Amino acid sequence: MRKTERIVEVFDTTLRDGEQTPGISFSHEQKRAIARQLDKLGVDIIEAGFPISSKDEREEVQAICSDGLSAKICGLARVLQKDIDACIDCGVDLIHIFVSSSAIQRKHTTKMSEAEVKTQAYEMTRYVKEHGLACMFSAMDATRTRLDFLLDLFKTAEEAGADILNVPDTVGVSEPFAMHELVAAVCRAVRVPVSIHCHNDFGLAVANSLAAVKAGASEVQVSVNGLGERAGNADLVETVMSLNSIYSAYGLRTKIKTEFLFETAKLVERFTGIQIPATRPLVGENAFSHESGIHAHGVIEKSETFEPGIVTPEMVGHRRRIVLGKHTGRHSVVKKLSEIGLSASREQVDEILERVKELGASGKRVTDDDLFSIAEVVTGEVSGHERVVTLKELSVMTGNNLTATASLRAVVRGKECTSAKMGVGPVDAALKAVQEIIGDEIDGGIELKEFRIEAITGGSDALAEVIVGVEKGGERGEGGGKERGGKERGGKERGGKEGGGRVVTARGVREDIVMASVEAFINAVNRLVQ
Amino acid sequence: MRKTERIVEVFDTTLRDGEQTPGISFSHEQKRAIARQLDKLGVDIIEAGFPISSKDEREEVQAICSDGLSAKICGLARVLQKDIDACIDCGVDLIHIFVSSSAIQRKHTTKMSEAEVKTQAYEMTRYVKEHGLACMFSAMDATRTRLDFLLDLFKTAEEAGADILNVPDTVGVSEPFAMHELVAAVCRAVRVPVSIHCHNDFGLAVANSLAAVKAGASEVQVSVNGLGERAGNADLVETVMSLNSIYSAYGLRTKIKTEFLFETAKLVERFTGIQIPATRPLVGENAFSHESGIHAHGVIEKSETFEPGIVTPEMVGHRRRIVLGKHTGRHSVVKKLSEIGLSASREQVDEILERVKELGASGKRVTDDDLFSIAEVVTGEVSGHERVVTLKELSVMTGNNLTATASLRAVVRGKECTSAKMGVGPVDAALKAVQEIIGDEIDGGIELKEFRIEAITGGSDALAEVIVGVEKGGERGEGGGKERGGKERGGKERGGKEGGGRVVTARGVREDIVMASVEAFINAVNRLVQ
Repeated sequence: MRKTERIVEVFDTTLRDGEQTPGISFSHEQKRAIARQLDKLGVDIIEAGFPISSKDEREEVQAICSDGLSAKICGLARVLQKDIDACIDCGVDLIHIFVSSSAIQRKHTTKMSEAEVKTQAYEMTRYVKEHGLACMFSAMDATRTRLDFLLDLFKTAEEAGADILNVPDTVGVSEPFAMHELVAAVCRAVRVPVSIHCHNDFGLAVANSLAAVKAGASEVQVSVNGLGERAGNADLVETVMSLNSIYSAYGLRTKIKTEFLFETAKLVERFTGIQIPATRPLVGENAFSHESGIHAHGVIEKSETFEPGIVTPEMVGHRRRIVLGKHTGRHSVVKKLSEIGLSASREQVDEILERVKELGASGKRVTDDDLFSIAEVVTGEVSGHERVVTLKELSVMTGNNLTATASLRAVVRGKECTSAKMGVGPVDAALKAVQEIIGDEIDGGIELKEFRIEAITGGSDALAEVIVGVEKGGERGEGGGKERGGKERGGKERGGKEGGGRVVTARGVREDIVMASVEAFINAVNRLVQ
Repeated sequence: MRKTERIVEVFDTTLRDGEQTPGISFSHEQKRAIARQLDKLGVDIIEAGFPISSKDEREEVQAICSDGLSAKICGLARVLQKDIDACIDCGVDLIHIFVSSSAIQRKHTTKMSEAEVKTQAYEMTRYVKEHGLACMFSAMDATRTRLDFLLDLFKTAEEAGADILNVPDTVGVSEPFAMHELVAAVCRAVRVPVSIHCHNDFGLAVANSLAAVKAGASEVQVSVNGLGERAGNADLVETVMSLNSIYSAYGLRTKIKTEFLFETAKLVERFTGIQIPATRPLVGENAFSHESGIHAHGVIEKSETFEPGIVTPEMVGHRRRIVLGKHTGRHSVVKKLSEIGLSASREQVDEILERVKELGASGKRVTDDDLFSIAEVVTGEVSGHERVVTLKELSVMTGNNLTATASLRAVVRGKECTSAKMGVGPVDAALKAVQEIIGDEIDGGIELKEFRIEAITGGSDALAEVIVGVEKGGERGEGGGKERGGKERGGKERGGKEGGGRVVTARGVREDIVMASVEAFINAVNRLVQ
C-alpha cells in the first residue's frame, strides 16, 4: 500500500446489528439519542435499522431520517422488493441489501442456488438504483463463500449499479492475513469502493477490519461497545483509534471527532446495561490507569513510558488515574499525598506504602478514603479531618404491604439529629434519611452524584460493594427534588470535574446491601465536608 | 510459513501481569486455586509472580512451586541479582528477566544507556544459567525499540545462554503486519525459541500474538479474561481458540484442554469481580446466543450457519441459547413452545410472537417465565401451571444494631405457612424465609442455583433487576446447610444440565432490591414446581 493520505469512512451499525445483540432493545428515544450522538461524533453513515422487521422499526428509522443529521442514514433490506420499499418509505439515503452467498447458508436457510443469488442480487440492486437511491450490496458470510463465486457475485452487483460492496465476516472466522488476501482480491475485481463488516467471535474483528483497510477497503462497519450478534461487531472506538493512531503510519485516518468517543461509549453503556469492563481498551476504567510501582513511576515521570503515547486519555475524552493497591510503589504515594496536602517524612512514606500494599494484598481496592486514613494514622496529622457525621442508630423496614421506611439517629457536627424517611426501597429510604440530616446541618447539603452497586454473583449472602460519589450542594431550597438521587442529574462520572464541585468517592462493602450503601455514603460525606 | 504441525506453548501470566491490573489483588488461596485451574487446563508455563516485590508474593510463588503441578512455574525478575535470588529461593523452574530497551523508557525510567542494558542483560542471563535454571529474557517495550539495537540485545542474551527470548508489546502499539515483520526479523537473528507478550491498548493483542506465531514465535503469553496492566494482555481463551480453530489451517495448535476454558474464565471472573461482558468472545453470555429471526432460524436448522462452526459451545465448555426478544422470529417461538410441551396453532404462534416482540421492544429481556405467561394467555391452556407459592405478607428489617430479619406469610399449595429468619442482610433473610416454607411443603425443597443482581448505576431509586435460578433439591434432611444459597454449591450456570435437575430462571424487577429478589425467587419456584 502506498503512503498516500486516505480517509476511511465510518459506517456505524449500533442501531441495526448492535440492536440485534441478544437481550438488547433500544427505545424510540434511545435510538434517536444514539443517532444524534453518532452524528456529533462525526460518523459518516448511520445504519438506523431494518425497516421491514416491524412497524415500530419503520417509525424509528423514519424519525432518524427526519432529524436533520449530517450523517447519511442507511436502512437494511433483504434482496426483496417489500424490504426495499420499506426502506424507501422511511426516506433513507442509502439502502443496504444483503443475501447469503456461502454454501452452508444457502443450503440450510435461503435454499437458493448460486445462480438464483446472482439474479436476485442483480435485480434488487437495479431496483434500488431505479429509485434513485445509493445502494450497498453485501454478500452475507462472504468469508466462507467460494472465492470465484464471491467475485462473480460482486461483479454482478457492480454491473447492476451498486455504489459500494460490503464484505461481511458474518460469523467472525477470518484472521488478518486471510482477510487481507480476500479484500485485495475483491478490490482487484471491482472498481467501486469496498466496505468491511467483521464479527468478533475470536476477538479479531478490529484487526480484521484494519487488515481489510490495508488491503484497499475504504469503509469500516463498526458498532459502539462492539455490540452485535453473538460476540458482536468490530468496536467503533478501537477501530477508529487504531486507524487514527497506528494506521496513520500508512497514511490512513477517519474524520471522527475522537474527543467524544468516551462519552459515546458511556451513553450506549447506560442504554444497554452491558457494562464496559475495567480492562476495555481506550474507554475502560483501567485503560489509562496505573498501579504497579514500575509503571506508575514511569507514567508520573512521563506518561508515554507506559502508555501508548500515540493515544492519550484526552484524545478520547477519558482520564488518567494512579491507583493505589498491592503493587503500588513510593512515587504513587508521594504524588497522592501531595495532592491532598499532607507532608510526610521519608520514613513515614515507607510506612504508608507498606500499609497501602497490605490493604491491597488483602483483596481490597484502596480508595482515596483509605489513603487519607492510613496517612493520618502514620503522620499523626489529621489533615483537618474529623468525622462530620457519625451514625448512631439505623433501622430500615420493607415488605410487600409496607412502604420502605428508614429511621435514623446520627451525630452531625456534635449535634444529635434524627430523621425518618420513606423511599422506593430500603436503600433509597436510608439514603434519603442520611441526606435529610446532612441537609439540615451542612450549608447547601450534599448531592449524590454517583451511586453504583457492583454486580453481585453467587449466593444471597455474597458481599455487596457500593460506590458512592458526593458533591457539595449548590443553592439551598431546592426542596424535595434534591432527594431523588443522582440519576436525574445525569449520573456524573466518578472524579468528574465539571460544575466546579469536587466529587469525592468512597466505598462500602457489607453482606447487607443497605448497610453497605449507607456506609459508603457517610464515608464519602465525611471526606468531602471537612 | 510451511504447513507443518507445530505446537504453540501457552505461557499464562494471570498471576503476574494479570494481578497488576489496577484494583486487583488475589488472596493466597485464590492464587493457588488459579494455578491449579491453569494446570488442569494444560497451560505449559505459569508465571506465578514477581517474588522480590513483597514477602507475601514470595510465599505465594513458593507455595505454587510446592503444589506439584505439571506446568512449569516461572518467576519474574528485573536484571538484578537480588530479584533473581528471590526467584531461586522460591524454587521456580524458569526465571523471566526483563529490562527496558526502548529509548523512551531508558531515558525516563531506568536511565541506562544501550551499552549498559546489554551488559546487564548478559550478566544476569549468565547469573540465572549459572544457577542451573531456565532463563527467559524480555526486552521491555521491544516494539518501540530501535530494531538494530533490539536484535543486538537479543543476540547478546542468546550468547549468554538465554533459553527463550520474549518480545513484549509493552504498551500495545503494534498491529499484525508490523508485528509479523518484527518477529520474523528476530527469528532470523537468533536460534533459540521466541515468545510473544502483547498488550491490548488498541484491542489488537490477540491478533498481534497470532501474527507473531505466524512469523515464527513458538510461545504466546496470555492471561485469563485478558487481565493485565491498563487494557490488559492477550486473552487466553481467544488466543488459544484462534490458534486451535483458525490457525490450525497453518498447522498450528496448542495442548490446552479447551473444554475447561469457560470454567477457567468464570473462576477468575469470580475472584476479580470484573464481570465478563455478555458480548465477550467464546465465554460471554451471548457468544453462542441468538435472538434475531434470521440468525436463530438458521441456527435451529444447523448451528454453523450463524456460528463459526470451527468452534462450538461444547468445545469451550459453554452452551448455546435461543433468546426471545424484539428481533425474535417464528422458528424460535415454535421451538421454545415445543420444549415446554405447549401446542399452539399457526395463528396462536403468530399472536405469541407478536406479544414476545412487543415485550422485547419495551426494553425488557424476555425470560422463560414471560413466554409461559404469554403462551398461556394466548392458547388458553395453562400447561398444568398453578401458582404453588403465593406471597401474602413479608416484612424485612435491617439496621446497624440489629440482625437483618424477615417475617413471611405465604400460601404454599393451599396451606398457609409462616417463617421468620435472620440473615447477613435483608435479601439473604428474605430468601431464607421463602426457602424454609418451601422446604417444608415441597419434597426435596428448592436449591438456589444462581443469584445475580445486575449492576445498578444511577440513583438510589434506580430499578433493580435480579435473576434467580432454582432447581429441585435432592434428598431431604440436609438441614441448615441448604439455606446458604448457591454460592457454596459452586453457582451452576443458568440452564446448566448437570445433576439431572432442570434449572429454571426468572427475573424480578423492582425499585426495592429486596422485593425484586423475592419476586424473582417465587416466580422461578412457581415455574419449576408444577
